Amino acid sequence: MNFESSTITVHAPATVANVVCGFDCLGFALEEPFDEIRISFSNEPGIRIRHNDEFGLPEDPEKNVVGTVLKSMIRATGFERGLEVEITKNIKPGSGVGSSAACAAGAAVAANRLLGNPFTKEQLVEFARDGELTACGSRIADNVSACIFGGITLVRATEPIADVVALEFPELFATVIHPQIEIRTEDARAVLPREVPLPTAIRQWGNVGALVAGLARGDYDLIGRALEDHVAEPYRKTLIPGFDELKRASMDAGALGGGISGSGPSVFMLSGSIEDANRIADAMRTVYSATSIDFNIYVSGVNRRGVTFVE
Amino acid sequence: MNFESSTITVHAPATVANVVCGFDCLGFALEEPFDEIRISFSNEPGIRIRHNDEFGLPEDPEKNVVGTVLKSMIRATGFERGLEVEITKNIKPGSGVGSSAACAAGAAVAANRLLGNPFTKEQLVEFARDGELTACGSRIADNVSACIFGGITLVRATEPIADVVALEFPELFATVIHPQIEIRTEDARAVLPREVPLPTAIRQWGNVGALVAGLARGDYDLIGRALEDHVAEPYRKTLIPGFDELKRASMDAGALGGGISGSGPSVFMLSGSIEDANRIADAMRTVYSATSIDFNIYVSGVNRRGVTFVE
Repeated sequence: MNFESSTITVHAPATVANVVCGFDCLGFALEEPFDEIRISFSNEPGIRIRHNDEFGLPEDPEKNVVGTVLKSMIRATGFERGLEVEITKNIKPGSGVGSSAACAAGAAVAANRLLGNPFTKEQLVEFARDGELTACGSRIADNVSACIFGGITLVRATEPIADVVALEFPELFATVIHPQIEIRTEDARAVLPREVPLPTAIRQWGNVGALVAGLARGDYDLIGRALEDHVAEPYRKTLIPGFDELKRASMDAGALGGGISGSGPSVFMLSGSIEDANRIADAMRTVYSATSIDFNIYVSGVNRRGVTFVE
Repeated sequence: MNFESSTITVHAPATVANVVCGFDCLGFALEEPFDEIRISFSNEPGIRIRHNDEFGLPEDPEKNVVGTVLKSMIRATGFERGLEVEITKNIKPGSGVGSSAACAAGAAVAANRLLGNPFTKEQLVEFARDGELTACGSRIADNVSACIFGGITLVRATEPIADVVALEFPELFATVIHPQIEIRTEDARAVLPREVPLPTAIRQWGNVGALVAGLARGDYDLIGRALEDHVAEPYRKTLIPGFDELKRASMDAGALGGGISGSGPSVFMLSGSIEDANRIADAMRTVYSATSIDFNIYVSGVNRRGVTFVE
């Protein structure tokens, strides 16, 4: 193996998964917030992880997302040197914008460079999925795919391995509000029906197809019409105070459409210009200022690069 | 109104609907077979329909697909002159390649030209859907959309009106086998489950999204991977003798993928070259020659024009 450098630092962005009609298959990367992950060779064997943040995540490699990813990669390469990891998280765990995915994807991309780039992006997605398993009990592929590939990604299927399609898309901006409430993953899952009535399912895949076509040709009207979700949103929105008001105010402010980010509590809206995105942020702020819930709002272009290296 | 001519003749092609993962939303037009429909002004009021074929379809405008379409268009325009219709069907009713849709779409396009082009393609789809209601009791949009727009069309949604997206796609060929058996529409509907397990539905819309992306970028490998259907094919294929053998032999002969056309009994396979399409036809012929069932096989490019005018 050809080791390019003894320390690699990356920025791994937040991601939005479950993009409206694209439940469990469509995701995209944000410009911010992002986590910073630094991985270095160490003379001591094994993996040591240190968190430079206040989120209280476990530093034990057996329990840490990054530890899981690195162990999978080490197993695949037979690599024997020790690794030192420093994580500065800015993406709050449990916010619904791919906090664990950023760590998993960032670690996979950084370690790959450190090891001399033995893996393809598709393979890095598989390693990062192992991190998601540690974080949430399931090898979810959509956040890590968007984080590694950047842009808007569609995970066609996940078995046996994730088949990731990086989609064509026009200039797009996202406005994301993170209400400071906790939604337990179990609750977000429990409210979803296990079966979808056939007409609802047909409507959903008609929308996914139209959304992909609309993105490819930069047809904002079609994108907007296709951004509807009859499968998850009607159930999960009950877990997010003020969801309908947020959406209505955002649409009035020029949003193409949007919905719940991941399994919430963050809510995102897409728009075609930074002006619209900022106007949507103002509208969201007005809605949430009338509640007693703390919140953060992010305005960001859709990030075409995904995980980036910091020199 | 500005009447361009007193007689309009069109060729309205067969179409394939329920394109694998795109159940109830994706369709495409074939080069052949096609129906010929001629519509002329008449000095006698009302609609008179004559069939120049052996299929025994009703000529009473109240019961004929073309009659329904023309009556809807007349109602919308307030047009008062009589119309004379001559239909030469080549698409056998009940074959599963949009026989009624060809009549409905052809009549809508021909009458629109005769009336001085007052309607958009989207409006013609709505009139043609009225014909589908007469033919099969449901305002199905996917065959008539593909017939009117040509190429590969995605019907995003049908209520209140059909939102039709004409997709980008690379050179594609279809091989269609029509086994001479009858599948009753009621039976084709009855075998379908009314609900789809959520993981199956997710897989299906992942495939639809990937198929649209693969078509747009001309990625035949991705198109092939996306051509899988876990919703209708597992149930409906039981109504088509030898379906699995047809499919296996076609894939071995170079098909990208394929499945049941409409609700059957026709089976279609897509490929990237006329050589593959012909090889698939040979493979299908071999499979079906071993049965006692009569059959026809068509090899055709995907028709980018839809209904065409005959001068």
